Amino acid sequence: MKPLIVKLGGSVITDKHRRFAVKRSALKRLASELATVKGPLVVVHGGGSFGHPLASKYKIDEGYKNERQLMGLSLTHRAMERLNAHVIDALQKAGLPAIAIPPSACAVVSDGRIQSMELAPIKKLLELGLAPILYGDAVPDLSRGMCILSGDQLIVYLARELGAGRVVLGVDVDGVYTGDPKVDRNAKLVPEITLANWPKLVESISSAGGKDVTGGMANKVRELLALAERRVEAEIVNATKPGTLRRAILGERGLGTRVVAR
Amino acid sequence: MKPLIVKLGGSVITDKHRRFAVKRSALKRLASELATVKGPLVVVHGGGSFGHPLASKYKIDEGYKNERQLMGLSLTHRAMERLNAHVIDALQKAGLPAIAIPPSACAVVSDGRIQSMELAPIKKLLELGLAPILYGDAVPDLSRGMCILSGDQLIVYLARELGAGRVVLGVDVDGVYTGDPKVDRNAKLVPEITLANWPKLVESISSAGGKDVTGGMANKVRELLALAERRVEAEIVNATKPGTLRRAILGERGLGTRVVAR
Repeated sequence: MKPLIVKLGGSVITDKHRRFAVKRSALKRLASELATVKGPLVVVHGGGSFGHPLASKYKIDEGYKNERQLMGLSLTHRAMERLNAHVIDALQKAGLPAIAIPPSACAVVSDGRIQSMELAPIKKLLELGLAPILYGDAVPDLSRGMCILSGDQLIVYLARELGAGRVVLGVDVDGVYTGDPKVDRNAKLVPEITLANWPKLVESISSAGGKDVTGGMANKVRELLALAERRVEAEIVNATKPGTLRRAILGERGLGTRVVAR
Repeated sequence: MKPLIVKLGGSVITDKHRRFAVKRSALKRLASELATVKGPLVVVHGGGSFGHPLASKYKIDEGYKNERQLMGLSLTHRAMERLNAHVIDALQKAGLPAIAIPPSACAVVSDGRIQSMELAPIKKLLELGLAPILYGDAVPDLSRGMCILSGDQLIVYLARELGAGRVVLGVDVDGVYTGDPKVDRNAKLVPEITLANWPKLVESISSAGGKDVTGGMANKVRELLALAERRVEAEIVNATKPGTLRRAILGERGLGTRVVAR
């Protein structure tokens, strides 16, 4: 059976405005929604208010430049472990046997991209019936010293290497919009993104002088289109709405934005 | 510069008689002793009262037999993460930038033995000046489903693969004795174990009908002798005595039991 890969956005499980603040009730609900998956499941979560402030403070993503960044890498990764521990504990309580797989321990990253990854433990866990839980992480980088490995890059790599059947991204909006739905009332939800309609869509998304007005959504879509080319379909759904993630992972389509090759 | 590998025994950093009890002041002291290391450092710690009770409850080391063990593996690993977090936090406070490397994420284990391990992240961390921190862990096993990967097996594997210069094991006794020093007043400290004197020594150590009266010390020595054959010297010292670990890692010999090829 092909694994399902679920991404939980950092803003879905943490309060982005308060450092180290977990959205406990949302996480508890999402854990029980994830526990309904019957087949092999891989979860990847973002950093939210745990990883981002420290990664930004120590400029981890600019590569190794000064000794202060060594403790910075240590602290940033530790913050991600803290968030991950909340996720694992919630999944265990929901009855899902989950095990953390920190990318910093098993991914070989160079110039910000995954070169290879030790997948044997992950594959064995899936075969046994355990859920490997990964996350966006501050990692050693063979060429730049250190970098941030995003959860979005991870899901694409894992989907490809594990032969995933489907990828579901849980975010805090209903899907991909033509603008930022939080501020732009004219922003429209895009039900389906394909290799064909993306070039035109990306223009409206990036209309604010090249800036991604939907907070990195364009980058997510770019990574997902690379998957779509390999016939792995993805759907971006609103995980803050109770039951939506569950419906999506149980197979329902059209709940948010689908990213397919077509 | 060749890395130094330090093992912290589970009984040195946890109270074996109380579940999930860290010896906070000992850990704080040991962290500051470890922070005096100038060159590349790898630390491996044991499970003590965190990992052992759960591993034993779910019979992780007997391999996969029933579905209950899936949550057992999840809980046992999580308990080890908890202990590891205490170690990392203490090291960070002592000024040592440390990063957890869970063996369950990067070691390929079959039939209880490490077949291979993704070492690129560890090597890069060492090159940058960060200390990778590993631990005895409940891991997926390619042939048995799951098993316990001991810290002792880890240090030998890492010493060999990373080309370590020296291995220091911090335990809660002064070294290897001819019996159990905690109960046998005639037990004598063995200052040096070599490939030549070991066969005779092991008899007295295992005198109680094949049982290792020093609590697994014979197994530790066996793993270390495999290293000695490769000219990596090891020393077992009492890490509960303030300053002893520091003196050992700074190069002093003869503080406990040396294990050398000779």
